Amino acid sequence: MLHFTITARSTETSARSGIIETMHGTIQTPIFMPVGTLATVKSLTPENLIQCGAQIILGNTYHLYLRPGCEVIQQFSGLHQFMNWNHPILTDSGGFQVFSLAKLSKISEQGYSFQSHIDGSKHMLTPENAVEIQTCLNSDILMCLDQCIAYPAEKKTAAEALQLTARWAERCNQAWVKTCQNNSLFGIVQGGMFPELRKQSAESLVKLNFPGYAIGGLSVGEPKELMLEMAEITLPLLPHNKPRYIMGVGTPEDLVEMVSLGADMFDCVMPTRNARNGQLFTSSGNINISNSRYRTETGPADPECNCYTCRNYSLAYLRHLYISRELLAYHLNTLHNIYYYLNLAQKMREAIAGDTFQEFKRNFYHKRKQSP
Amino acid sequence: MLHFTITARSTETSARSGIIETMHGTIQTPIFMPVGTLATVKSLTPENLIQCGAQIILGNTYHLYLRPGCEVIQQFSGLHQFMNWNHPILTDSGGFQVFSLAKLSKISEQGYSFQSHIDGSKHMLTPENAVEIQTCLNSDILMCLDQCIAYPAEKKTAAEALQLTARWAERCNQAWVKTCQNNSLFGIVQGGMFPELRKQSAESLVKLNFPGYAIGGLSVGEPKELMLEMAEITLPLLPHNKPRYIMGVGTPEDLVEMVSLGADMFDCVMPTRNARNGQLFTSSGNINISNSRYRTETGPADPECNCYTCRNYSLAYLRHLYISRELLAYHLNTLHNIYYYLNLAQKMREAIAGDTFQEFKRNFYHKRKQSP
Repeated sequence: MLHFTITARSTETSARSGIIETMHGTIQTPIFMPVGTLATVKSLTPENLIQCGAQIILGNTYHLYLRPGCEVIQQFSGLHQFMNWNHPILTDSGGFQVFSLAKLSKISEQGYSFQSHIDGSKHMLTPENAVEIQTCLNSDILMCLDQCIAYPAEKKTAAEALQLTARWAERCNQAWVKTCQNNSLFGIVQGGMFPELRKQSAESLVKLNFPGYAIGGLSVGEPKELMLEMAEITLPLLPHNKPRYIMGVGTPEDLVEMVSLGADMFDCVMPTRNARNGQLFTSSGNINISNSRYRTETGPADPECNCYTCRNYSLAYLRHLYISRELLAYHLNTLHNIYYYLNLAQKMREAIAGDTFQEFKRNFYHKRKQSP
Repeated sequence: MLHFTITARSTETSARSGIIETMHGTIQTPIFMPVGTLATVKSLTPENLIQCGAQIILGNTYHLYLRPGCEVIQQFSGLHQFMNWNHPILTDSGGFQVFSLAKLSKISEQGYSFQSHIDGSKHMLTPENAVEIQTCLNSDILMCLDQCIAYPAEKKTAAEALQLTARWAERCNQAWVKTCQNNSLFGIVQGGMFPELRKQSAESLVKLNFPGYAIGGLSVGEPKELMLEMAEITLPLLPHNKPRYIMGVGTPEDLVEMVSLGADMFDCVMPTRNARNGQLFTSSGNINISNSRYRTETGPADPECNCYTCRNYSLAYLRHLYISRELLAYHLNTLHNIYYYLNLAQKMREAIAGDTFQEFKRNFYHKRKQSP
């Protein structure tokens, strides 16, 4: 099971830095986890990820269960060997993708029944087999199956969903306790945009004494202020000595705000997906690489960035590759964005260690000029 | 200008190995040149290419002239700095792509008039500006503009094409002598599938005393035996002390045969394009990575291969990535195929140096089990 140690705290904010020890190595927090949906962080090799400063990546259980399937990954004793990544892996439960991707998904006390978005084949995702599949993937951190809800949602819907999520968390916990030894199961707080439901959800999960906790159901279409309000209310309800993970969030500004509120872990497709759509995150704001202003620009995307892309390639070359739809465009853009996110996490860790987080935050906003 | 030294000769075949010195470094021959059409060998970084053993790459003048255009590449003093490849580059003249890709191309004594396949804009490619564009690209080796013909072609058509090619070669030579100093211009032998026309073409070009010679118009749909016959007839007509380049060829077997006949340089889209279509070249034959027999196969694509892909990934993983259309599939497959071709070239150089080329050839065919 993981071991979490807090190594520094910010005195002016709730930010903290720490170390999570897992069976596949150590993670320094706050940390961003690149998304490796199908046993690959799109366009990057494991060596590229390490060069970018990645310490842990995320795999999507729904996708991996359907393709290549557990039978294949079992031949490799799990995801690490299959994809040649010998560092920590967190997997989600699959619930969110069943909710958002699968065909004809139906929810019941038992779990989700759904049809594959690939071939229409019928499947069932229960708390028990969500743990079983993640165990087969040999994840270092497993997530409980939860019920995701759309935004906006009625309070009644949100309440029922969090109650089902709580009952499923118990079943996940039982399945995990039975079968797992070296990995860790995180509970997921739901409750929509209702403070008292978030509180109710957190309390029911804390009783189960999970090794870590996540906040789910954020960044689902709600206004930014509401997202931050929910995080601000929920984070203090979670055990202070356990890792706190905000699922599916977010922009660089979101990460800085969430760390400020005491969050430790993040995942988001934004740096990878936006890279493939030509958006680069830089210390002075976001840029669209297809912009004609970069046609003959010999300088790098971000002069302050020390990533492979910025050290070796000009904006003009990146624009040319992107306009030409060259495969190298996706690689170089992704490499830069992942480096940007991981470097941001590292800068936050340093600022927390030096207790200069507020100053870091002011400089960050001053340079980025993006609204939070 | 380049300097070519022959360092070893096979006694049983016409194979030879040598060294070409250029302003951007040294090339050991026989050598395969990966195709980097748009200032990138698709999906690979320059570092990947070096790891694969690449010594020289090819750029396509037609493509680069249209996109990003000379105006952009001039900002970087040429292709090397633009694409971060500080080793030799050979560029074609653009003639073949005008012939095969451009819209409404028309040929006259002056040159090709054509419309861009991208935006329909009108352009003119003459012997003089083919040299000028390649000079702007700062290529180490430039190619003369030639007239390409379809297969099959009438003898009269082939004769007229080679005569125009000869007149253009003179004009290219004059343009090159005027403007260039550090790079080298190669003449291209045409003549279709007619031995006496090949002879006529070679003789007219040899008079111009180019630093190197290419054989064009092969691998255009003719039977394999005819291609090899044309090469066998033409190669001895070219100066023995100059590099000989077979354009657009070919399979691993083609390379072995052509080296056996005394050729030194090759380029072909086959390793890169086929990689993107899921075909891997291996020491024991070609494989299609999407084949279901590889679904749970934990071994590498080629146990004898020392490339990054084979050292780190299983057939099952490569199949999974390819079936899932993951970007990493194209990268890992391309890396393997380019390594395979460059390793084949290296093995041939070693065999020539040790005068064991015939033995090498027997083993090669015995293992590959592909027809030549």
